[in-house]
Amino acid sequence: MSFFGGLISTVFERRYRGASFVDAAGRTIPELAQDLLGSHGEVSGGTLARLILDRYAAMTAEEKRGFFEFMTHGLEIDAKAVTDTLQTYRDEPSKRSYRAFAAACEPKRQELIRRLNQVPGATARLVAMREDLLKLLRAHPALEPLDVDFQHLFSSWFNRGFLVLRPINWGSPADILEKIIAYEAVHTIDSWDDLRRRLQPGDRRCFGFFHLAMAGEPLIFVEVALTKGIPNSVQDLLAGGRDAIEAEEADTAVFYSISNCQAGLAGISFGNSLIKQVAADLSRDLPSVKNFVTLSPIPGLNKWLATADVPTATAENQRALAAHYLLEAKRGDGMPVDPVARFHLGNGAALHAVHAGADVSENGMAQSGGAMVNYLYDLSQITSNHEHFVTDKTVVASSEVRALSATIETKP
Amino acid sequence: MSFFGGLISTVFERRYRGASFVDAAGRTIPELAQDLLGSHGEVSGGTLARLILDRYAAMTAEEKRGFFEFMTHGLEIDAKAVTDTLQTYRDEPSKRSYRAFAAACEPKRQELIRRLNQVPGATARLVAMREDLLKLLRAHPALEPLDVDFQHLFSSWFNRGFLVLRPINWGSPADILEKIIAYEAVHTIDSWDDLRRRLQPGDRRCFGFFHLAMAGEPLIFVEVALTKGIPNSVQDLLAGGRDAIEAEEADTAVFYSISNCQAGLAGISFGNSLIKQVAADLSRDLPSVKNFVTLSPIPGLNKWLATADVPTATAENQRALAAHYLLEAKRGDGMPVDPVARFHLGNGAALHAVHAGADVSENGMAQSGGAMVNYLYDLSQITSNHEHFVTDKTVVASSEVRALSATIETKP
Amino acid sequence: MSFFGGLISTVFERRYRGASFVDAAGRTIPELAQDLLGSHGEVSGGTLARLILDRYAAMTAEEKRGFFEFMTHGLEIDAKAVTDTLQTYRDEPSKRSYRAFAAACEPKRQELIRRLNQVPGATARLVAMREDLLKLLRAHPALEPLDVDFQHLFSSWFNRGFLVLRPINWGSPADILEKIIAYEAVHTIDSWDDLRRRLQPGDRRCFGFFHLAMAGEPLIFVEVALTKGIPNSVQDLLAGGRDAIEAEEADTAVFYSISNCQAGLAGISFGNSLIKQVAADLSRDLPSVKNFVTLSPIPGLNKWLATADVPTATAENQRALAAHYLLEAKRGDGMPVDPVARFHLGNGAALHAVHAGADVSENGMAQSGGAMVNYLYDLSQITSNHEHFVTDKTVVASSEVRALSATIETKP
Amino acid sequence: MSFFGGLISTVFERRYRGASFVDAAGRTIPELAQDLLGSHGEVSGGTLARLILDRYAAMTAEEKRGFFEFMTHGLEIDAKAVTDTLQTYRDEPSKRSYRAFAAACEPKRQELIRRLNQVPGATARLVAMREDLLKLLRAHPALEPLDVDFQHLFSSWFNRGFLVLRPINWGSPADILEKIIAYEAVHTIDSWDDLRRRLQPGDRRCFGFFHLAMAGEPLIFVEVALTKGIPNSVQDLLAGGRDAIEAEEADTAVFYSISNCQAGLAGISFGNSLIKQVAADLSRDLPSVKNFVTLSPIPGLNKWLATADVPTATAENQRALAAHYLLEAKRGDGMPVDPVARFHLGNGAALHAVHAGADVSENGMAQSGGAMVNYLYDLSQITSNHEHFVTDKTVVASSEVRALSATIETKP
Repeated sequence: MSFFGGLISTVFERRYRGASFVDAAGRTIPELAQDLLGSHGEVSGGTLARLILDRYAAMTAEEKRGFFEFMTHGLEIDAKAVTDTLQTYRDEPSKRSYRAFAAACEPKRQELIRRLNQVPGATARLVAMREDLLKLLRAHPALEPLDVDFQHLFSSWFNRGFLVLRPINWGSPADILEKIIAYEAVHTIDSWDDLRRRLQPGDRRCFGFFHLAMAGEPLIFVEVALTKGIPNSVQDLLAGGRDAIEAEEADTAVFYSISNCQAGLAGISFGNSLIKQVAADLSRDLPSVKNFVTLSPIPGLNKWLATADVPTATAENQRALAAHYLLEAKRGDGMPVDPVARFHLGNGAALHAVHAGADVSENGMAQSGGAMVNYLYDLSQITSNHEHFVTDKTVVASSEVRALSATIETKP
Repeated sequence: MSFFGGLISTVFERRYRGASFVDAAGRTIPELAQDLLGSHGEVSGGTLARLILDRYAAMTAEEKRGFFEFMTHGLEIDAKAVTDTLQTYRDEPSKRSYRAFAAACEPKRQELIRRLNQVPGATARLVAMREDLLKLLRAHPALEPLDVDFQHLFSSWFNRGFLVLRPINWGSPADILEKIIAYEAVHTIDSWDDLRRRLQPGDRRCFGFFHLAMAGEPLIFVEVALTKGIPNSVQDLLAGGRDAIEAEEADTAVFYSISNCQAGLAGISFGNSLIKQVAADLSRDLPSVKNFVTLSPIPGLNKWLATADVPTATAENQRALAAHYLLEAKRGDGMPVDPVARFHLGNGAALHAVHAGADVSENGMAQSGGAMVNYLYDLSQITSNHEHFVTDKTVVASSEVRALSATIETKP
Repeated sequence: MSFFGGLISTVFERRYRGASFVDAAGRTIPELAQDLLGSHGEVSGGTLARLILDRYAAMTAEEKRGFFEFMTHGLEIDAKAVTDTLQTYRDEPSKRSYRAFAAACEPKRQELIRRLNQVPGATARLVAMREDLLKLLRAHPALEPLDVDFQHLFSSWFNRGFLVLRPINWGSPADILEKIIAYEAVHTIDSWDDLRRRLQPGDRRCFGFFHLAMAGEPLIFVEVALTKGIPNSVQDLLAGGRDAIEAEEADTAVFYSISNCQAGLAGISFGNSLIKQVAADLSRDLPSVKNFVTLSPIPGLNKWLATADVPTATAENQRALAAHYLLEAKRGDGMPVDPVARFHLGNGAALHAVHAGADVSENGMAQSGGAMVNYLYDLSQITSNHEHFVTDKTVVASSEVRALSATIETKP
Repeated sequence: MSFFGGLISTVFERRYRGASFVDAAGRTIPELAQDLLGSHGEVSGGTLARLILDRYAAMTAEEKRGFFEFMTHGLEIDAKAVTDTLQTYRDEPSKRSYRAFAAACEPKRQELIRRLNQVPGATARLVAMREDLLKLLRAHPALEPLDVDFQHLFSSWFNRGFLVLRPINWGSPADILEKIIAYEAVHTIDSWDDLRRRLQPGDRRCFGFFHLAMAGEPLIFVEVALTKGIPNSVQDLLAGGRDAIEAEEADTAVFYSISNCQAGLAGISFGNSLIKQVAADLSRDLPSVKNFVTLSPIPGLNKWLATADVPTATAENQRALAAHYLLEAKRGDGMPVDPVARFHLGNGAALHAVHAGADVSENGMAQSGGAMVNYLYDLSQITSNHEHFVTDKTVVASSEVRALSATIETKP
C-alpha cells in the first residue's frame, strides 16, 4: 500500500503488539487506524477516534514512538501513485484526475489526524500528541515528515480566522489563570498575589488568543503595562508597592512579556497578529495611548560579547555595546543574531531605545548584564519596516540607537 | 512559476484588467494575491485578505469567473517540481525534502484560501465564494480542480471536532430562525406561526450544527417530533390544531426533516453525525424515548414507476410498490436508486415501514403518490447495518417491508 | 386576629369552599396562607408558595375575587395593635418596640406576597396577579388597599437598581420579539417583516428594561430612529422601502414609540429612566448624535378642539391649534390636559416643534387630525425644566412653538 | 416634619456641617436627602443618589454616625400622622386613606434607602452601609430602629426569588474565589492550593447564592464532599494527599462548611434554603447519593462542660457527653444551647451521629475537644422534624445518639 510502508508496518506490528496495543477485541492500533480511514470511519468514526486517542494516552514512551513510526512509515505516500496520477492529470485535467493526484500526494496520516479530530476535545489531545513527537525528533529524525504534516494541519486549523482574542483579568476563571502562571516564560510569576498585581490594577492588561475548540487553553498571551512615558526598567514596572495610574492618563502601552503556551504548536506563529490586534484594540479603547512599545530582553548579548571583537563591557559603554549588538551582530543569512530582535523586527517593529540596568534579575544580568530594549510598533510604519527588513535586511532604528552604536569602535 | 500558469496568468490579466480588478494603487487581484502569498502576507495579511475579499464581493459574474480561472490556472502546481522533489525525498528522506515535496504538490491556491481566511468573518465569505464557483462548474469544467481544493480545505475546517450542536427553539435569535424558514427544504415553513408550531410545543425539538467561526449560520438542522408510536402521516404530525403531548410521555423521536443550509458546503457531510448525536442526546435526556425513526419522502418512486416493469399503481398496491422500489430498484453500482434511501441506509439505518397517504401535499403526491417511509436508527445496529450496506449492498429491512415487497410480481 | 378580618375570613371560607379552594389534604387557601405566614413557612415555604400560586392559576374569576377579598380583609392590619405599639415605641424607643410597631402597621398580606415570591418564576406570576386585581378595582373598590400594597412592594422590587437595560434587535430571541409585536402600543407592528424593518436597519435601535427575575419579559421598551434632522412624519420614518443611513451619519435620535409591557406594573414608572439612560448610552456610542427628541402623538387634541373656544381647525391653522393646546389646555391642577405632554414635560423635556400631517394613520387622524409633536430631551436642561414644570407648572417650549400658539386668538 | 425629628435635624446639621458634609454647591447631606426624597428625586434621582453614596464613602466614622442619626431621627415617623391617618382609614377605607396611612407608618428613611438603590452597584454599597451601622449599635442603641428598616428592606430585596444558586468551582472567576478564601468561616482556607483541593477534585462541590444585582459577590456558600459512607473526621475529609473518588461512586453528600459572606446581611437567613436546594440538585444529578449530612462543629460543648453537672470528660465518655449536650443542654426558652444545633434542627435536620477526634485542629480541640456531629437532612422528614422542633422543642435524634446520651448520669 505504500512505497516502503508495507515492511515497516509489519515490523511495527511485530514489535509493538504489547498489552496496550491490542484492545479487548484483539485489534492493534494500525488495524484501528485502517478502520478509521476506511468505510467504518464514516459511520463509527467518533467511536474509533476516541478509542485510538484513549489508547494513545495510555501508551508508554516506547509505544508512542512505535505509533509515530507507524504513522510516518505505515501511512506514507506511494511514489508511483504520485507520478502516475500526475501524468494522468497532465494528460487529462479533470475533477477526477486532479482528485486522484491530490489523494496520492497527501499521506494517509494527514487524513488519520483529521479523523481523530472529530471527537470533542480531540484538538487539544492532538496538540499534546505533537508535543510528544517534537521531543523525539532529535533522536529520531526519520519521524520528521510526520511533524511536517502535523504542522501543516495545525497551520490550517489555528488560522487567525479561527482564533479569538480575549482579555485575561482578575475576573477570568482560575483554571485559565493558573495556566498563565505556569506558562509565563519571560518574567516568572511566583504566586497568585504576583499574578493579581499583573492583572488587577487599572493600568495593567493581559490578552490571549484562544482557539474555539480549545476554549480553556490560552495559545499565547501578552502582558501589557499602561504607563506615562516609555519605561526603562522591568523591575520598576513590576514593583510590589507601586501606585497604579488611571488607564486614561497613560500615553504608552508596554508589551513587557509574550509567552507561548502550547509546545505542540511550535512553529505556528501567533505573536505577530497578537501584538498588532492588541495595539489596535487599545488604540481604539484608550485614545490617549499613542506609543506601543516592548520592554524586551536581549538574550544573546553576553554570549556575543564573550567572543566579539569589541571593547570590554563597562558600566559606561554597556548601552552602546547593546545597541551595537542589536544593529550589527548578524547571522550567516544576514539576519540579526538576537532571536527576540528577529521576532520584533520581522513583525515590522523598530529598534527604539536601549537601557542599562533595566533587568537586574539573576537571569537579566546573566544574559545581557541587565540591558533591555524597547521595540516600537508604529502601526503606520510596520509594513514598510517589515519590507526593508526582509528585502535588504535593514534594521530600522532610532537615531539615538544608531548614535550609541556608532560610539563602539570595532577592530578592523 | 507553474506548468501552464504563466501564459494563462498573462491572458487573465489582459482580459480582466477591468475597473474592479485594479485598485486605487493600480494593483490587480493577481498582484494582490501574490502579495498575500509572499512576505507581505506575513505582516499585512489581514489588510490584503480583506482587500481581496471586498474586491471579490464587488465583482460581476464575469469577473468572478476570471478570478476563479486565475486561481485554477495561475496558482496551479508545477509538475516538474512535483517529480523533482519526489525524487529528492525518495533519495534523501528528511524534513527539508519532505516539506519541499509537500509544498510542490499543493497548489498555491490552497494557501491563498487559507490566508484569505484570517479575516474575521472570512470563513462564511469563502463558503459563499465556493457557492459561486459551484454554479459555474457545469459550464466551465476546467475550474473543477479549484473546487476539489475548496472541498479539501472545507473538510478539514468543518471537521466534526470544530462543530457544535445547538438546540434551535422559540427562544433562539430571530436572525437564526429566519434562516430556518429559508433553508427548510423538505416540508416548507410558510410563516413565523408555522415555525412556532414546529419549535415551541413541548413535543417538538430542533437541532443544528454550527461552526465556531460562523456563529450565526446553521450548517444543517434536523426537526424532531416526539410521539407515542411511530407516525404514518406528516400532515398529522404538523397539523395546526393538534394537542401536544408531554415530552416525558413520548416513546419515539421522529426526524421528519433534515435540511442543509450552506450550498457552498456541498459534499461536506454532516447529516450522519447530526442524526446520531441528536439521537444520543435525546436518549440521555428523555429515557422513555426508545425508537429513533425518520418519516422520509420517497422522491424517486413515481419516476421509477413510470418506466419499471411493475404492476400499475393502485390504492391497494401502492405501499407494496414503494417497498419494492426501496428494496429492489438499484443503480448501476448496486446502490438504491432513491437518494434519500442511499443517505439513511448509508448511515446505518434500516428500512422499517412504508405508509400510503403519508404526505398528501402537492409535492408528496407528485413524487411518490403520497407514500413515505420510516428509516429506523437503532444505535446498537448502525455499525453492522452500514457494514452490510457498503460491503455487499444489503438493504437491511423489517420483515414487514420485505413481505410487502414480495407481493409485487415483476415481469421476468 | 384583625380588626374586621375575623368575620370576613369566615364568610370568605364559607363562600369559596369550592373545588379548587380545597386541596387534596382538605386545606383551604386561607389555611395554606396562614401556614406560609407561620413557622411552616420557614422550612416549607417554597412548597407552600408554589401550591398557592398553582391553586391561584386554576381559579375562576369569582374565586380570584374571593382570594383578593381574603387578602384585603382577612390579612388586614389591627388598628388597636397599631396604636398600642406606637404608644410603646414613643414611650420606650428601642429595637423591640420599633419592630413591633412596624409589624403592626404592615398588613400580613404584604408578607404573604413576599413569601409567595420565593418560588422561581413567582415574580412574573405576582405581576399577573395584580393585573387580575386591577381589572376588579372599578367594580370592587374595597380591594384598593390590597392594590396599594402590591404597588408598594413592586416599587421596591422593580427599583431602577434591579433593572437592566438591554438592546432588542433582530438577533434577540423570538419569544421576546413576539412580545414586542404584542405590546407595541403606539404604532402597531403588523407582522414579523414590519418588526424586522424596525430592528434590523443600521439606523434603528430598540431598548428595553428587563428585571433580573423576569429575564424573558420586557417591562417597557422604546423604539429609536437615527436620522439626519428632526423628523416631521412618522409614516416617512417607518416607510417600507426607505433607504437606511449609516448610524454614524445621524445627528438625531428619535424616540418614536414607548410602550409599557406589563399591565400588572401600572403605576410603577420606568419611562423617565429609560429615555434618559438610552439617550446617555447613544450619546456615548454615537458622538455625532446631538439631538434627542420624540415624535409623539397628541392624543387629546381633537377631543379638546370639539369643546374649546378656539377657531375651527383648518389645514392652515392646525399646527397653531396643536401648539396652543399643548401650551394652554390645562386640567384643574394646572397640569396639561394632554397625557403624553404631562409624561414628557414631567420628565424634563421641552416642547420643541409641532407638525401637521405627521401621522396620517386612521388613529392619528382621529385623535389629532394627523398632528404630532417633538419633545426635546436636552440632558443639560432636564433638571431645571422639570423643576419649573412641577413648581410653577411652566411648560418649557421653543420660541417657534410659542409663536405658533400665539397666533390663536381665544375668545375672552 | 416629624415628631421629634425637627430638633434633632437642626442639631445634626449644626454638629456635622464639616468638610465632607457640604458639597461644592454648599448642600448638606440632609439637604441632598430631602432633594432625593422630593420632586427632584423623580427626574435627577440617579445623580443625587450617586452623590450621596459617594459622599458617604468618603465619610469618617464620626460622620457616618451623624448620617445614621439623621436617618434615624431626622427621617422618623410622625406619630400624630399615624394616628390621624389610621382614624381616617377606619372611618372611610379607600385607596386614598389607606395610602395615607401606609405612608405615615413608614419612616422616610425607608424611601431614602430605596431611592439610593437606583444607582448601578448601589445594593452592595447599601449592604456595606448596614455593616457600618451594625458595628455602632452596641454603643449607640438609639440607632436600632434604622437597622430594623434596613433589615426589613433587605428581607424583601434578598428574597429567595431574587437569588440564584451557582456552582463555584475551579473554573470560577478568581475575584469570586478570593472571596471564598476570605469568607470561609469554619475550616480556614490557607492558600490557593488549599482552595483548589476543595474545588477541583471530582468528589468535591461548592455552591453559593448570588443576588442578581450583586453578581460578583457570593452571599453564602456551602462546601460539599461526596463520600462513600458518612465521614467522622474533617481532617480526613480535607487531607492533602487523599485519593478522590468518582462522583458516581458516592452515596453521601457532606455539607462540611457553610459560610455567610456579607456582614451587612446579618439576620437575613439563606442557609436553610441553600442546603435544601443543593440537596435537591445533587439528588437529581447524582441519583446514587442517598444521604445528605453535615459534619458540624459543636462550638459550645467545652464551655458547657466547664459548668454543667456531668462527669469529667475522658477519652471514653466524650462522645456520650457531646450527645448529652446536644440533646439536653437547653436555653431558658427550651431551645438547645448550641447555636449550630439550633440552626440545623431548626431547618428540620435530625441529630444523626456524634464523633470523637473528628476535628483535631487547635480550634476544634478548644471548642469541643475534637468532637463533631452529623446532622441528617432527610428531605422527606424535614417538615415534620421542624414542626416538632418549633412546636414542642423536640430534638429529633437517632437511637444511637439517644443511647449514647443516656449513658451519662447527671447529678439530680
